[in-house]
Amino acid sequence: MIDSEFTYICESNLTFMVIEKSDRLILLTNDDGLYAAGLKTLQGVMEEFGKVVMISTMDSQSGMSQALTVKTPLRVKLLDENERHRIYACNGTPTDSIKLAVNQLLERKPDWVVSGINHGANSSVSVLYSGTMAAALEGCLYGITSVGFSLNNFSSAADFSACSTYIRYIMEKIAQEPLPAGVCLNVNIPAADKKDIRGIRVCRQSKGNWKEEFEKRKDPMGKTYYWLTGIFINHEPDADDTDEWALANNYVSVVPVSVDMTAHSYIGKLRERF
Amino acid sequence: MIDSEFTYICESNLTFMVIEKSDRLILLTNDDGLYAAGLKTLQGVMEEFGKVVMISTMDSQSGMSQALTVKTPLRVKLLDENERHRIYACNGTPTDSIKLAVNQLLERKPDWVVSGINHGANSSVSVLYSGTMAAALEGCLYGITSVGFSLNNFSSAADFSACSTYIRYIMEKIAQEPLPAGVCLNVNIPAADKKDIRGIRVCRQSKGNWKEEFEKRKDPMGKTYYWLTGIFINHEPDADDTDEWALANNYVSVVPVSVDMTAHSYIGKLRERF
Repeated sequence: MIDSEFTYICESNLTFMVIEKSDRLILLTNDDGLYAAGLKTLQGVMEEFGKVVMISTMDSQSGMSQALTVKTPLRVKLLDENERHRIYACNGTPTDSIKLAVNQLLERKPDWVVSGINHGANSSVSVLYSGTMAAALEGCLYGITSVGFSLNNFSSAADFSACSTYIRYIMEKIAQEPLPAGVCLNVNIPAADKKDIRGIRVCRQSKGNWKEEFEKRKDPMGKTYYWLTGIFINHEPDADDTDEWALANNYVSVVPVSVDMTAHSYIGKLRERF
Repeated sequence: MIDSEFTYICESNLTFMVIEKSDRLILLTNDDGLYAAGLKTLQGVMEEFGKVVMISTMDSQSGMSQALTVKTPLRVKLLDENERHRIYACNGTPTDSIKLAVNQLLERKPDWVVSGINHGANSSVSVLYSGTMAAALEGCLYGITSVGFSLNNFSSAADFSACSTYIRYIMEKIAQEPLPAGVCLNVNIPAADKKDIRGIRVCRQSKGNWKEEFEKRKDPMGKTYYWLTGIFINHEPDADDTDEWALANNYVSVVPVSVDMTAHSYIGKLRERF
């Protein structure tokens, strides 16, 4: 554990803040693998807030949603340990990583689960496919304050330099008052220079879907195979209260995400029908 | 296509119904594989409602959530075709199967996506991990009427004989009036004799979580590995409007599930905080 100390941060476009670096225990993962630049950035910021335990795969696990590994054994390897962090490699999905850490690797229940920074946005319905957000949802199911961060740039060489300021600001807010039970945050950051980012918008998930365009190819044996590709279609481009709108207008989007998938507004009508 | 015809069904505890078997095109999948008894049962009922195109893996894909295959090629094989159905084997997840079928294999957009019958309940937060429900959610994202069915019995030798009556009843209701955009149904059927099932309850998703109990073992080389196991904890056993309550009291639970994961009720408060 790290003794309490204070770190001062001043950013031109955000309020002056004081981060209390207490004995906070932060579980950190991603779905782009341990060598991803986004994870490195997030690790740096999280080490300002507390002791970090990081667990991820060596390679990427994109699009794994909240998948569990049930048919093959899980393995874990401790790669590094010092006073600031402990780093594990794991062969499971992001959700497996959170479950393994909480149940087998951590000395106590962590204070936060933080996931990302994903290389690529997880706005709109991408939240359903996202391994990054699945890890946050998994933390949330354990009753842990959980946030997933993504940058709207799929490149492995994406520039994460604008992210740290906003991550600090959001986690400081979270530190002041925890999220309600069953709610985590989905934060998407525009791929823009820091000076061009206009601030933070609390949003709802935009309606949309991915339009697949499978590439149909022949292998050297002449057999057909398919590669999944696709483009996102925003069904409500004019609505100004969505995460898609925020990103398109250079705002950081913050969507509160619920583990309760019930369509509550339709229960009454459905009861009448049955 | 099959010409319109009528099939009459009379069940002692349900309303007399007339099923119109028109040129309806039904896309069917599951996450227990093509040889699962639950899929066979669902196929039988769906062939009463229209032309069935079935696609699944040869082996099971449990707990795959809405995972996508992005790093390996997808392959599909036509196994059987006659006037009632067409059956494909695929090497992808349930979500891949729906995407491939809709985009590459079907002559037109299907009228329904139906998934299951899963061997094991997908009540409460299991909806987040479920491949069965992910397939229904995927259909829903395409704007297709979609339903996932599960039996509260994990055994591969589970008795599905009580299911058909309720599946017919629910799909007949759906045929009369489609579901709203962005909403699919999660149907869980008690593992009970048909005479003991008390009817259908429209419910909400129960609050709960899985408590993991990893089995830590040594392989023959002396290296540690973990198997994921767990037990479900219902956080609100006394609430009588949840899917868990319905199953525990021998009702078929029907939960309307939304592809919108936004915690709408928390947006206002979160805006005040940021």
